[in-house]
Amino acid sequence: MQDQQRPSRSLEMGTARVEAFSDGVMAVIITIMALELQAPHGASLDAVLDQLPGLLVYVLSFGFIGIYWNNHHHLLRAAERISGAAMWANLLLLFWLSLIPVLTEWLREEYRHALPAAAYGAVALAAGVAYSILARALIRANGRESALAQAIGSDLKGHVSQVLYAAGVGLAFVSPWISYGLYVAVALMWFIPDRRFTRS
Amino acid sequence: MQDQQRPSRSLEMGTARVEAFSDGVMAVIITIMALELQAPHGASLDAVLDQLPGLLVYVLSFGFIGIYWNNHHHLLRAAERISGAAMWANLLLLFWLSLIPVLTEWLREEYRHALPAAAYGAVALAAGVAYSILARALIRANGRESALAQAIGSDLKGHVSQVLYAAGVGLAFVSPWISYGLYVAVALMWFIPDRRFTRS
Amino acid sequence: MQDQQRPSRSLEMGTARVEAFSDGVMAVIITIMALELQAPHGASLDAVLDQLPGLLVYVLSFGFIGIYWNNHHHLLRAAERISGAAMWANLLLLFWLSLIPVLTEWLREEYRHALPAAAYGAVALAAGVAYSILARALIRANGRESALAQAIGSDLKGHVSQVLYAAGVGLAFVSPWISYGLYVAVALMWFIPDRRFTRS
Amino acid sequence: MQDQQRPSRSLEMGTARVEAFSDGVMAVIITIMALELQAPHGASLDAVLDQLPGLLVYVLSFGFIGIYWNNHHHLLRAAERISGAAMWANLLLLFWLSLIPVLTEWLREEYRHALPAAAYGAVALAAGVAYSILARALIRANGRESALAQAIGSDLKGHVSQVLYAAGVGLAFVSPWISYGLYVAVALMWFIPDRRFTRS
Repeated sequence: MQDQQRPSRSLEMGTARVEAFSDGVMAVIITIMALELQAPHGASLDAVLDQLPGLLVYVLSFGFIGIYWNNHHHLLRAAERISGAAMWANLLLLFWLSLIPVLTEWLREEYRHALPAAAYGAVALAAGVAYSILARALIRANGRESALAQAIGSDLKGHVSQVLYAAGVGLAFVSPWISYGLYVAVALMWFIPDRRFTRS
Repeated sequence: MQDQQRPSRSLEMGTARVEAFSDGVMAVIITIMALELQAPHGASLDAVLDQLPGLLVYVLSFGFIGIYWNNHHHLLRAAERISGAAMWANLLLLFWLSLIPVLTEWLREEYRHALPAAAYGAVALAAGVAYSILARALIRANGRESALAQAIGSDLKGHVSQVLYAAGVGLAFVSPWISYGLYVAVALMWFIPDRRFTRS
Repeated sequence: MQDQQRPSRSLEMGTARVEAFSDGVMAVIITIMALELQAPHGASLDAVLDQLPGLLVYVLSFGFIGIYWNNHHHLLRAAERISGAAMWANLLLLFWLSLIPVLTEWLREEYRHALPAAAYGAVALAAGVAYSILARALIRANGRESALAQAIGSDLKGHVSQVLYAAGVGLAFVSPWISYGLYVAVALMWFIPDRRFTRS
Repeated sequence: MQDQQRPSRSLEMGTARVEAFSDGVMAVIITIMALELQAPHGASLDAVLDQLPGLLVYVLSFGFIGIYWNNHHHLLRAAERISGAAMWANLLLLFWLSLIPVLTEWLREEYRHALPAAAYGAVALAAGVAYSILARALIRANGRESALAQAIGSDLKGHVSQVLYAAGVGLAFVSPWISYGLYVAVALMWFIPDRRFTRS
């Protein structure tokens, strides 16, 4: 009996450590972007205004990572078991998120151009796909009848986000401002706490 | 019975992970500021003295973040439940705190001017407001009769801090030194451990 | 009876904190490498392509650290006790892993030369040896009959990796591309989740 | 009965979070020093040898932080309660440790001079004093009869370290190499795992 308890405790610890590692990576990503913010060159209001686009891009990226952290938190809280596949999917998600700081830096300099705007959307799309893979791997590990599987359901919100990001990548070549509008729209859509998990 | 236990365990895990993520962000903020400290250019005493203002600004900001970590710790330790609103309020608090390193860097260069001194106070004020929102969201989640609600009480200290920070923002345009005096005063006021929580 | 329980709880906490610290270090290593990625200088496709080798080196190093995190996770999950020797072996492993970002930076600039390719392999080899020392220290702490000892077994995969890394160091002086091929081969070999632990 | 259980659980969580935050700060300090390591300028052996003093200073500082992490781990594992005073003492310790990366950077450039060598020792001494304050605060919180108090005992090793660091500060003005010898001696003295705690 005691022997049968062990693996379950051990599997739960697995979840805990995946959460801890992901928290660590996301915490560092957020603060590294803050580190890349440049102090105004001088003490005048103009010097501050020069840094304003950079600050707005930072707000977008902070929100982006914050939303992922929040949803990741709800997703793993609902999971009871973790599998090897879920661990690799999680690493893949963290890989894409880890590219956000360098894209933020690029956007800060070149926000008027199509390519950085499209690249930002492409990485956001890739992160979204990795998140879906992670969710599906967790469903496989926890069973189709699990609370987790029912909470995720058809994942409409996830699919809509991915379509909007893909549109943002394409439309960046019409105007990058359309892309930014789409990315902000996705952020607002997720900002509303995910009822599916809080209900469960 | 076992089913009713689950959500409570799960909610508690929620608190744990919010603490872990916040700890991660605050730990990185503190150490990133240390990274921005510059080694003296040379091995003479003069080269060291050149870095002294920067070191003092670092001490102020280290104390500022350290105080938030300490109070955040007491606040969440007293909480038993967390809500979606509290999670977003916490992210908002972390956002304002994440701007402290770049303000520290700015202050290091331009501490003689009004604007950086005012900006530092404005971000400190915003962080204080976010902390109050977080405290109120936690009271809503835990109930007006909870130990948490009674421990926070009227939050006099929080309101006084916010008035002093607001004064620091305005008076920076008279002299930045008045602002620095006020910010240090707030720090000393919070340095004294919060009886409200240790008693509870 | 209660007194006999204490040390075991306390030892388990030991494992938890070693995991937490290691997670922290590995999380920062991964994100610091992302920080060292440079944003393209301009918004053209050529500017992006200039950063491609750097991105590929980052992918290799991200995979390298990710694989260590994953296996470290399985290794410590299987351990029930930790010893002083295991803690030092763990620090030694983290020391070698902490050199990966600076080697990644070096490789990004000088990937066509033998010395950086050999140095990368030498540090990877040293990390592998430290991991083996850690595994052996954990076996000593948990006993030859423990699930951990049986899961590790003869550690064939570990020995093969070390031989391939050593070959990579030597063959870098023939061509660095042979070394990179060998390093990728080791990464792919470990990418497959370690059956030994998931079965246990 | 349930009410009397609460505070003890809550106090234990206190210890856990202090450990987590300290781990986070120390993990970032160690990896930030790795970030400050410079990749050799070129792919020749001479370019590597140019970075050798920097690498040795890094090894010293990595060992220094690693030793603190290890002993901090043993100290807090032995503690059952934490107090407000202990939390501030812990922050003070982290403050001094957070200055190690900038001193490491300074030493890397100016290791032939007295002032950086003395400054390194002065910060190491301050960290040692903060550690003693922390240990004493924990003894007060846990009682003179606690396992912790008996494990710490007269703290001979701590006092000897502080004397050697103080000597290193003074003798740096004779020759910095005497200081480095003393700092390495202290490191080796602590490298041996602390029997006092492993026995308890």
